[in-house]
Amino acid sequence: MPKLSVTRRVHFNAAHRLHADGLSEQANREQFGPCNNPNYHGHNYELEVSVTGEPDPTIGYVADLSEIKKIVTSEVLDRFDHKNLNIDVPEFRNLNPTVENIALVIWQILEDKLPGTLSKVVLWETPRNHAVLEI
Amino acid sequence: MPKLSVTRRVHFNAAHRLHADGLSEQANREQFGPCNNPNYHGHNYELEVSVTGEPDPTIGYVADLSEIKKIVTSEVLDRFDHKNLNIDVPEFRNLNPTVENIALVIWQILEDKLPGTLSKVVLWETPRNHAVLEI
Amino acid sequence: MPKLSVTRRVHFNAAHRLHADGLSEQANREQFGPCNNPNYHGHNYELEVSVTGEPDPTIGYVADLSEIKKIVTSEVLDRFDHKNLNIDVPEFRNLNPTVENIALVIWQILEDKLPGTLSKVVLWETPRNHAVLEI
Amino acid sequence: MPKLSVTRRVHFNAAHRLHADGLSEQANREQFGPCNNPNYHGHNYELEVSVTGEPDPTIGYVADLSEIKKIVTSEVLDRFDHKNLNIDVPEFRNLNPTVENIALVIWQILEDKLPGTLSKVVLWETPRNHAVLEI
Amino acid sequence: MPKLSVTRRVHFNAAHRLHADGLSEQANREQFGPCNNPNYHGHNYELEVSVTGEPDPTIGYVADLSEIKKIVTSEVLDRFDHKNLNIDVPEFRNLNPTVENIALVIWQILEDKLPGTLSKVVLWETPRNHAVLEI
Amino acid sequence: MPKLSVTRRVHFNAAHRLHADGLSEQANREQFGPCNNPNYHGHNYELEVSVTGEPDPTIGYVADLSEIKKIVTSEVLDRFDHKNLNIDVPEFRNLNPTVENIALVIWQILEDKLPGTLSKVVLWETPRNHAVLEI
Repeated sequence: MPKLSVTRRVHFNAAHRLHADGLSEQANREQFGPCNNPNYHGHNYELEVSVTGEPDPTIGYVADLSEIKKIVTSEVLDRFDHKNLNIDVPEFRNLNPTVENIALVIWQILEDKLPGTLSKVVLWETPRNHAVLEI
Repeated sequence: MPKLSVTRRVHFNAAHRLHADGLSEQANREQFGPCNNPNYHGHNYELEVSVTGEPDPTIGYVADLSEIKKIVTSEVLDRFDHKNLNIDVPEFRNLNPTVENIALVIWQILEDKLPGTLSKVVLWETPRNHAVLEI
Repeated sequence: MPKLSVTRRVHFNAAHRLHADGLSEQANREQFGPCNNPNYHGHNYELEVSVTGEPDPTIGYVADLSEIKKIVTSEVLDRFDHKNLNIDVPEFRNLNPTVENIALVIWQILEDKLPGTLSKVVLWETPRNHAVLEI
Repeated sequence: MPKLSVTRRVHFNAAHRLHADGLSEQANREQFGPCNNPNYHGHNYELEVSVTGEPDPTIGYVADLSEIKKIVTSEVLDRFDHKNLNIDVPEFRNLNPTVENIALVIWQILEDKLPGTLSKVVLWETPRNHAVLEI
Repeated sequence: MPKLSVTRRVHFNAAHRLHADGLSEQANREQFGPCNNPNYHGHNYELEVSVTGEPDPTIGYVADLSEIKKIVTSEVLDRFDHKNLNIDVPEFRNLNPTVENIALVIWQILEDKLPGTLSKVVLWETPRNHAVLEI
Repeated sequence: MPKLSVTRRVHFNAAHRLHADGLSEQANREQFGPCNNPNYHGHNYELEVSVTGEPDPTIGYVADLSEIKKIVTSEVLDRFDHKNLNIDVPEFRNLNPTVENIALVIWQILEDKLPGTLSKVVLWETPRNHAVLEI
């Protein structure tokens, strides 16, 4: 049998800058270029969250995507949307908010809270750059 | 060697309502909310069908995507496009047409009919909700 | 000075069928083909609503797009989304819900209710078909 | 004869906050909600710039879109991309960077610098919100 | 009353090179750069064709978009799709196939053949470059 | 732990024709139809390249996507963009440039050159047809 999953796409707008605490100011500028701007820049992030499983034989859902949307909204969007990730989101106080680190933080936030098995997180920083986590 | 697949994307427009025969009318309204509207609503479904294999050494195709398009058209689109899934498509007489059940029905219809090994079906109900089946 | 407008995009999912009361059943089938299916089909409609004007010198808004979203939600989406346009929306009891007629109805609903001058309505029935109303 | 124009689309990523100098802190919070976050948020802006005219009878161009891209890059993108609009871009020191004001500033920057008559600027703040300036 | 139009989007894939007969080989290389490659390059062109008018009071159509699709297919797509514009399409034997010239040729082909008043042609050469003709 | 990857999307425009050296002219026309046009046609190819690994604990990158972009540009885009694949790219002198063969060639070019483990290549020939290679 093929593996079955369902996915919900959401979006949030946030400011960030890339800055590694373990590097000097000079090394940060060389490593991250304009992404290191001390005044921040920002993105329209697009996020897809997938859960895998069998469809409920009566209901026909692997999981209720409107319930997933509610959980992603309260756990991620309410904390990330229209925020400065470096300042307003505690997880990034000591963690560089690269697209892969943001995806990892979202995975850790969601993995025990969804009605089903979290199987994939895709996070687009721009239409040209994204990170994927999947089991 | 990496696994190789080729994919064809098609679309169909259909009406449906979500309704589980095993639930009371009241439970259906609570479970499915506006998706349970007895007069139906509808979607522009987007469908991607993938087959996997080796490219033919002479032709250079894993499979002929124009042939796949013809088969998907005759087996799926001619039966689903501009239809009411609940009424016009026999597979959903007793099966709730959730996005995951529609994807499963499409998999079952196509898996023995394509020139190659069906490896993935992706079905978008909206740009924000989709189901994936993959081996 | 160039003309300035701001636009909000929203979406709704609805069932409909094309059927002209002034034509015979046979003429309806010939005119509208599969769109005349008596059991309905459906679409993910995308809607853009624009207002034109001068930006407020203090606030910097031609109009508050979040206020426009609220009005479009209460006046259009709450009445059209997850509905059967022919049955559930009184404006289409005696009016064929073609993409141009739906756009005209939306214009008439919104033109006196928005904070600013309604200047454009674009309605996509599919990514390939749309209607535009503009002054 | 129909009017002819050619368009180039580019993008930039920037942080901003909405804040009107003429309003109290309290009024700013009420007017702009989460967009007033003092720590900023951000967007992937998409920008389309159009010029209108007759095609050169030898060359076949209304204007050379690669030249337009160079000018938009040096005049707009190099100054806006990966920046904080409120802090790093002098035009917004005393001007609220709403989508309509950013579009107006871009129009003023470009109108005398392009090889042809600037006829339209479209600026998307998100896929759901945009401003248009056109003659 | 606002102006009403309906639009159909289609696509075609074609090879071309930019080359002006009135310029030397050297001037062509300088003017058009890689677009002057003598071996051609190519694009997935996206085309939108709009007609304007009043909706028929019985039918509800400004124009039948499926009829427009048939005409655009036979008059444009059957002649341009999977072709080399410079070699296979007589209109470009002595006319440089820039995006604006292709749009002008399409306008001239269609303007007397559509069921309604042709009001707009938009032609995308890439998602970043397009031409618009409109009355 | 879920598998982590990061992806960069780029694009190139190229002409090609499908033609198998091992088939007669007649068999080529039957196999490839309009794609066999001896004068070529073309596409806007979209390419996604993914690498997988652990994020560097100091930097926070699985791989630097701007470095990946530079390598993909010099190794693939500078050789494929605005080219005729059959004539200008030596890899296709004796290999039919089907979407799966182009993806395979890109995989072979890139697999030892990227800063990280190449895990996925997706190549869209059109928005409706694509090939995927993945480990």
